[in-house]
Amino acid sequence: MLEMRNICWRILCNRSFSSSVTPNCFPLVSLDRPHDIWHPPPTPHYSTHQKTVEIDGKSIANDIKATLATEVNHMKNSIKKAPGLGVILVGERKDSRSFVRIKKKACEEVGITSVVVNLPENCTETEVLDAVSALNNQESVHGILVQLPLPCHLSEQKIINAVNVEKDVDGFHPVNVGNLAMTGREPLFIPCASRGCIELLHRYGVEIIGKKAVVIGRSNITGLPTSLLLQRHHATVSVVHKFTKNPEEITREADILVSDVGVPNLVRGHWLKPGVVVIDMGSTLVTDSKGSHVTGDVCYEEAIAKASLLTPVPGGVGPVTISMLLCNTVEAAKRAYQWTEKS
Amino acid sequence: MLEMRNICWRILCNRSFSSSVTPNCFPLVSLDRPHDIWHPPPTPHYSTHQKTVEIDGKSIANDIKATLATEVNHMKNSIKKAPGLGVILVGERKDSRSFVRIKKKACEEVGITSVVVNLPENCTETEVLDAVSALNNQESVHGILVQLPLPCHLSEQKIINAVNVEKDVDGFHPVNVGNLAMTGREPLFIPCASRGCIELLHRYGVEIIGKKAVVIGRSNITGLPTSLLLQRHHATVSVVHKFTKNPEEITREADILVSDVGVPNLVRGHWLKPGVVVIDMGSTLVTDSKGSHVTGDVCYEEAIAKASLLTPVPGGVGPVTISMLLCNTVEAAKRAYQWTEKS
Repeated sequence: MLEMRNICWRILCNRSFSSSVTPNCFPLVSLDRPHDIWHPPPTPHYSTHQKTVEIDGKSIANDIKATLATEVNHMKNSIKKAPGLGVILVGERKDSRSFVRIKKKACEEVGITSVVVNLPENCTETEVLDAVSALNNQESVHGILVQLPLPCHLSEQKIINAVNVEKDVDGFHPVNVGNLAMTGREPLFIPCASRGCIELLHRYGVEIIGKKAVVIGRSNITGLPTSLLLQRHHATVSVVHKFTKNPEEITREADILVSDVGVPNLVRGHWLKPGVVVIDMGSTLVTDSKGSHVTGDVCYEEAIAKASLLTPVPGGVGPVTISMLLCNTVEAAKRAYQWTEKS
Repeated sequence: MLEMRNICWRILCNRSFSSSVTPNCFPLVSLDRPHDIWHPPPTPHYSTHQKTVEIDGKSIANDIKATLATEVNHMKNSIKKAPGLGVILVGERKDSRSFVRIKKKACEEVGITSVVVNLPENCTETEVLDAVSALNNQESVHGILVQLPLPCHLSEQKIINAVNVEKDVDGFHPVNVGNLAMTGREPLFIPCASRGCIELLHRYGVEIIGKKAVVIGRSNITGLPTSLLLQRHHATVSVVHKFTKNPEEITREADILVSDVGVPNLVRGHWLKPGVVVIDMGSTLVTDSKGSHVTGDVCYEEAIAKASLLTPVPGGVGPVTISMLLCNTVEAAKRAYQWTEKS
């Protein structure tokens, strides 16, 4: 009887989940499998008997950048065009200026042209919207990024909503978030950190389908889109946040754990199921006896004894996130010019 | 140490969850509390010692309709305008025609003007898009509803995306779904069944914040938006779907269980934690020894011995879903005319 019920459940549920994707004239982001331009060799699955493997984000990011550099070079040779990224930076925040510098340098490495629009801390919303509008209209700019956070007097929502959805390489526009959430829809862009998370899982051969995934944090930038993306990849997703009464207990059920709350060492060893795959997206500058250093949400020393795969901080998700921004920008340019490697 | 860590977690996490809502000149849907027009008396919480209470969806729907009827009447007297709903019905599906008839009748009950555009089963996509466009431009139509499912040759995505987001009373446009997903954003409309689910919980005094909610099913129409909305109300949400390996186990952890897969009696008594609140959104026509009748996803006879609150099928979520469509339409008209009860 139970067997019959289970079969019934499997068969009947299919109709709720059947895809209604409209074929696109130009391929968009594929959510159901790793994108096509890389074919990483499948790596073996990890069991609790194996030593923890540290995910090498830097090396993966370098691989991706090398592939992109080749592709950009082909594009330049083929149609005499380069992908372009426009960045809007408001104010003098040190961390924001540093992030923008890193992104600009990464663009240079792969041949993406980048332009940074600097606006003063006290600029008006209209000035920022005008800058967005100018980049929207600039043909050589295929991706637009508004460096967050913005000063408090500016509406992040209004400014992000003003970015042309076809240039929204951060994937924060509600149209892209909505299409990321909905089965059968294809967002034009997936937020970079979330896409980076899935990329790491794919590259290390981690099966997502049917796995219990726990995402700690639900920020619009990282936690929320990552939970949506893991669900699109058919994980069973639970989201833990500040109102969750038993975060340790829920986290302990995870086969795949993603954390992005910015609380150093929040996740201790006893929060982890043996063999769990840990993607630590937290990144907080801490000053202690070791001096100033960046620390993740997961207590590394304790996690290394429990996890099968673990991202270090720094050197884990961070570099891959930047490389995903480059991917999104190159894909935006390819769509704009309707160009593929084969064309 | 653990205490400190917990405090740290609570305090620091706040920054991820702080609201960045831009004040609107006209109030939108409030996600953080029940909407203003009704003030249901808080009812006591239910414990495992109490008998199961059956949620009376019909009576709640009647209450809502009575309130709306008064409001629509005030609007007519005040500005000589009535809210208007435009429905597009393609083909001859019996269930779709019946749903449209029910919606039309409900509109009449509260004084909403409704217009149904009937298109033949074999109509072209352009014809449907033209009908959408005509309703988008019709000033007296404040809400547009495309009755789903559409015939297979039509792109549901293209047609729903064509609905003016300000008239999207079904809440299925990606902009509305994206804004529903994101913290601090306000969708113009919340999908009716999901809004109805929260309305029932509020009316029966069920606390959502911090509760473990499990949503079985992730359809774009019901399961997905309900999971997003429960998360916006600060439940800890897990989504169970066809790839979930241990649906019974996960479901058994729920304080609030929502099911919407259309598999009669999928959820058995042993799937339920004693005292759980069950919102059964399934609705399947079954023919058996009792004749033809509509059945939910939850085995009612077994759930009645376990749940503290339970929706019957029919008579639970269904009528409230229809009344939420009326609410969305009235709110659309109020926004269009910038009219409130006080104006």
